[in-house]
Amino acid sequence: AVERDGEGDIIICQLSAKRNVVVQDWRGKTLVSIREYYEKDGRMMPSSKGISLTAEQWESLKNGIPSIEKAIKSLQ
Amino acid sequence: AVERDGEGDIIICQLSAKRNVVVQDWRGKTLVSIREYYEKDGRMMPSSKGISLTAEQWESLKNGIPSIEKAIKSLQ
Repeated sequence: AVERDGEGDIIICQLSAKRNVVVQDWRGKTLVSIREYYEKDGRMMPSSKGISLTAEQWESLKNGIPSIEKAIKSLQ
Repeated sequence: AVERDGEGDIIICQLSAKRNVVVQDWRGKTLVSIREYYEKDGRMMPSSKGISLTAEQWESLKNGIPSIEKAIKSLQ
């Protein structure tokens, strides 16, 4: 069974107790939303804290992973 | 030469004209910030629209990539 948030969007992966990644169709555009949630009446609702990436921006993020990893290692 | 935002954080990758990924050290913790920017006095300033992931949350996001990709394909 898939897990859905309070707006009916499928929660693809959970980053922490209140942070989720949701993939949604918004007016024909696919968005990857990385967002903080809050509980309301027993349902997990998306808050305004987060960002919804277009498919192109998601591709750019994926392409940036090696650089991001390198930057993380250089800080640790 | 590295590109820095108006707060001195290195811009690791650009997702769109006004969206950047920054890796920063915050009180000894590494954060991966995916954020919308705005221009102020010729400098790119991070806005409140976005999310800063801990290293653990970033790992979870990376681990979730196959599921996210699958969800994107199922919508398109």
